[in-house]
Amino acid sequence: MKSYIGIDLGGTNVRVAKITEDGKILAQVKGPSYGQEGPAKVMANIKELIREIPEWKECSGMGVGVPGPVNTTAGCMVLSTNLVGFTNYPIADELSKEFGMPAYVDNDANVAGLAEALVGAGKGLKTVFYVTISTGIGGVLVVDGKTVSGKHGFGGEIANIIIDRNREKINYLNVGAIENECSGTAIKRKAEAAIPDKDFPHTGMVFEYAEQGDERAIEIVKGMEKDLGQLFATIACVCDPDIFILGGGMMKSADKFLPGVVENFKAMSHTAVHDTPFVIAGLDEPGIVGAAMLPVSQGK
Amino acid sequence: MKSYIGIDLGGTNVRVAKITEDGKILAQVKGPSYGQEGPAKVMANIKELIREIPEWKECSGMGVGVPGPVNTTAGCMVLSTNLVGFTNYPIADELSKEFGMPAYVDNDANVAGLAEALVGAGKGLKTVFYVTISTGIGGVLVVDGKTVSGKHGFGGEIANIIIDRNREKINYLNVGAIENECSGTAIKRKAEAAIPDKDFPHTGMVFEYAEQGDERAIEIVKGMEKDLGQLFATIACVCDPDIFILGGGMMKSADKFLPGVVENFKAMSHTAVHDTPFVIAGLDEPGIVGAAMLPVSQGK
Repeated sequence: MKSYIGIDLGGTNVRVAKITEDGKILAQVKGPSYGQEGPAKVMANIKELIREIPEWKECSGMGVGVPGPVNTTAGCMVLSTNLVGFTNYPIADELSKEFGMPAYVDNDANVAGLAEALVGAGKGLKTVFYVTISTGIGGVLVVDGKTVSGKHGFGGEIANIIIDRNREKINYLNVGAIENECSGTAIKRKAEAAIPDKDFPHTGMVFEYAEQGDERAIEIVKGMEKDLGQLFATIACVCDPDIFILGGGMMKSADKFLPGVVENFKAMSHTAVHDTPFVIAGLDEPGIVGAAMLPVSQGK
Repeated sequence: MKSYIGIDLGGTNVRVAKITEDGKILAQVKGPSYGQEGPAKVMANIKELIREIPEWKECSGMGVGVPGPVNTTAGCMVLSTNLVGFTNYPIADELSKEFGMPAYVDNDANVAGLAEALVGAGKGLKTVFYVTISTGIGGVLVVDGKTVSGKHGFGGEIANIIIDRNREKINYLNVGAIENECSGTAIKRKAEAAIPDKDFPHTGMVFEYAEQGDERAIEIVKGMEKDLGQLFATIACVCDPDIFILGGGMMKSADKFLPGVVENFKAMSHTAVHDTPFVIAGLDEPGIVGAAMLPVSQGK
C-alpha cells in the first residue's frame, strides 16, 4: 500500500506524519513551527522533521495543510496572518525539489474536509460537502475525491453566505452572514446579550439553558437551527451532495441542535433531497491525515 | 477528431446531430418527438433519426438532453411531465444496447451549461457555473469538464435558493426563492403589479421604462440587481467558479441589468473574488451540442 507525508503546519506548532493511502498514521513527529521567524527557519525545521520519519523515501508524495487561503495551483498561501512572510512563498515547489516527490498545499479546513471525504464518513462517495462550525464557519466541497478550491481558493468558504438580510452589522462580513449568526462566537454573543443574568463559560451552555426551559435560550437555539437549515438547503441547491459531514467544536452539542437543523433543511428543500445524510465528522486526526490525502486526491 | 451523437429531446420536437468533440455540428435531422405517445413511439422515432445521420457508426458515444430532472447514473428521468411515461424509463441503456456505444442522459439546462463549459466561454477552465434566467431560473456546476449533478440530480437547481426571507409566498418554492424574485415571470409579475398604467407585452419592457426614468420600474430593476448579486455571491462562496456564464431569454436585456448585478456581487464578496468574470452564453446550439458533450465529459 502506498504511503504519503502529511504536514500540519500551524502558526505555533507543526506535525509531520507518514500515512497510508487509507488514512492510517504509521509514524509522527512534532515540534514548534517557528511561525513568527519567517519562511527560511520554518522550512528548514519542516525538512528536518520529515527526515526524522522512518523510511520517508518510500512515500509517494506529500501535502501541507496551512492556516489561510491557498492558491492550490501555485502551491502557496494567498494570505498569511499566522505564518510571517508566507504570502506567495512557494512551499510546494521547495518541498518537491528537496525531496524529489510531488508536493501540494491547501488550507487546513479544506484538508480536514478532504480527509473526511476520502477516508472518513464520505469514503467512496462522489460529492461530499464538509462544514466546520467552531469559532468561525468554513467548509469544502469535494467532488470525485478532489477539493473544489475554485479560481481564488475560496471554494467552500461559506462564512459569508447571507441567510437573512435583516440582521445587525457585526464586522466586515455581510449583514446576515452565516458566520456572524451561527458560529460559536456568534451564539455566545447572542446568548450574553439576551441572557445577562446567566454565565457562559463556554458556548455549549446556551443549549443547557434551553434544555432547562429558558425561553431566551430556546429562541436562540431555534434561530440557529433555522439559519443553519437554510445554509444547508442553499448548498444543496448548488451541488446536491451525497452527504453533509459536520465538524468543529460546536459538534460537541450536535445532539441538541442537529435534529432541528435537519428539520429546517427539509422544510426549505425539495422532497427529493430529504434523505441527504448529515453525519458528524469522526476521524481522530483529520488535519494531518487530510494533508497526506492531498497527493492522493491528485492521483499521485 | 472524434465525433458524437447529440439528441435534444423535447416534449414537442426532437433533434439529432453528429457533432465533433470541439462542438462543430456535422449533420442534423429533426422532427416531432411524439412526447404524448409514450416511450415505445418516442424511442423508435429517435432510433430512426439516428440512422438517418451519415456514418453514425463512426461516433464514439451519444448523449440525450431531456426536459426535467435526471438520475444520471441510471440514465433515466426522475420526473417527466412533458414526456409521457418516461419517469424511470431506461433511455441510456436502450440506446447503448441498440447502437453499441456509450449513452448518457442529463437535463436540458445541465446539457446547455456543459456545452458552454466545454466548448463555449468556459473552454479550458476548471470550475464553471452556468446560470439560465428565463421563465424560470436554473443552472449547473461543471468541475473538470463534468457536471456536478449530485446525489439526486438537483445539483445546480438554484431556483429555490432563498435570497430574502421577507418576501411574499408565491408558490411551492421557498419564500424569497430567487426564481420567484428574479425570473422573467417574477419580474413581469412585479412590474404588472407596481405599474398598472403601462403595458408589458414582454418582460424586457421593465428595463425600457426604467431607462425612461419610471421610478417604479427603476426600483424593480435595482431590486433584481441586488437579488441576483447576492445569488452569485452565495454560489461563489460554495465553489468559487473561474467564470459565471449566463444564458436564457432575460440575457436579451443583460446590458440593462448585468453591470448592476456585478456591482452588487462585489459588494457582497471578498475582494479576492471581484475579478470573477460574468460572460453571456454565446453558443448557437447549446442544447444539442451539450447533449453530444455528455460522453465527452465522461472521458469517452
